Amino acid sequence: MPRQLYELCGTDPARVFSPYCWRTRLALVHKGLAFETVPWRFTQTEAIAFAKSEKVPVLVDGERSVADSWAIAEYLEDTYPDAPSLFGGPGGRSMCRMIGNWAESVVQAGLVTMIVADIPAHLDPVDRDYFIASREKRFGKPLAEVTAGRETRVVEFRRALYPLRTTLKDFPFLGGDAPNYADHSVFGAFQWARCVSDFPLLEPSDAVHAWRERMLDAYGGAARATTASDAA
Amino acid sequence: MPRQLYELCGTDPARVFSPYCWRTRLALVHKGLAFETVPWRFTQTEAIAFAKSEKVPVLVDGERSVADSWAIAEYLEDTYPDAPSLFGGPGGRSMCRMIGNWAESVVQAGLVTMIVADIPAHLDPVDRDYFIASREKRFGKPLAEVTAGRETRVVEFRRALYPLRTTLKDFPFLGGDAPNYADHSVFGAFQWARCVSDFPLLEPSDAVHAWRERMLDAYGGAARATTASDAA
Repeated sequence: MPRQLYELCGTDPARVFSPYCWRTRLALVHKGLAFETVPWRFTQTEAIAFAKSEKVPVLVDGERSVADSWAIAEYLEDTYPDAPSLFGGPGGRSMCRMIGNWAESVVQAGLVTMIVADIPAHLDPVDRDYFIASREKRFGKPLAEVTAGRETRVVEFRRALYPLRTTLKDFPFLGGDAPNYADHSVFGAFQWARCVSDFPLLEPSDAVHAWRERMLDAYGGAARATTASDAA
Repeated sequence: MPRQLYELCGTDPARVFSPYCWRTRLALVHKGLAFETVPWRFTQTEAIAFAKSEKVPVLVDGERSVADSWAIAEYLEDTYPDAPSLFGGPGGRSMCRMIGNWAESVVQAGLVTMIVADIPAHLDPVDRDYFIASREKRFGKPLAEVTAGRETRVVEFRRALYPLRTTLKDFPFLGGDAPNYADHSVFGAFQWARCVSDFPLLEPSDAVHAWRERMLDAYGGAARATTASDAA
């Protein structure tokens, strides 16, 4: 059986839009490991029950199934040590974890308040109802109110990218000369946004914008194919 | 001539209290490189003019002088490649830079608003006047007003440490099993605070608190000797 990756998709199965699924997809590409995607939607909990998980990504690799993007990254690094390192060598594993945690708590947490109301348009009715209900419960208000004022708030979001921006003045990627899992983790957030929203998150003059373009070009343009505006 | 490190000190020359000087001091200790400290105060600009710098740390290593903590870290890694790596190997250099930039913009920037008013008590009169005037100009208000409300604001500061705290649940150090320059960079901020202020920044139950204790014990307790309350 070919290697399989269960990924969160919209109505269009090519529209992968979970930041964590993008981390894993790029990790597989980085390792040069072929896989086939299994489109998964929010309400298909039974389809991944075999992996004892309620969330994607889930990787099925031969006899093994692994859930959780970080667990998958460690699994891939340890199982395929001769393929290009995800962590820049053994000393980089914990730093990749730190940067991934920063991506989650700063980049993703900031992004969601600017794009969440754009997501339902990409979902099937059954998923749309689930998504809106669960997210409105989480935020305690209608999604349109969550994203209200984003044109102003985006300035603060951009400011919070300072550590990334400053690093990218010295290095083309967080991994140095080439991307590694730290790049995958931060880029996953931007790619998630890009798949569901046209809202301009970055100014074209921003070093982060230039890095995002490099990430879109990396790995033969693996991430560039999916955008919000090419909806089927 | 022995290797020399110009470090920012208070009236007590043992009270090194620049976050960047602590980064460099621990980098030298990590590399196992002996050095003698040259106490430097804010107003002694002429003493480091030879290095074309107005700030410390400045390292003098034989014929070379290097200013700026990041430039020194790169210099040490490249000049002493057989000593323990500061960056966890070549792939970790840019990730160390990213985490150092996070330390600067989140940890140091958060800390300064809670401890800056505690600093003048550790300075000689001439430095004290310079320090108060320059910092009050930077903040646009008296230092006592900068730190006002810190008992409340510290909660927000602790929350911003989420990426660090979460990483430390998986790894004892940012460098993995042992500290590296990412740890030096973040710890430098806490050690700077610890040298000048007794204000309790971390709760004892916090994983960041436990890590700070491990860092104080690291390298034979190199950082533990200096505290705010043992003032001469």
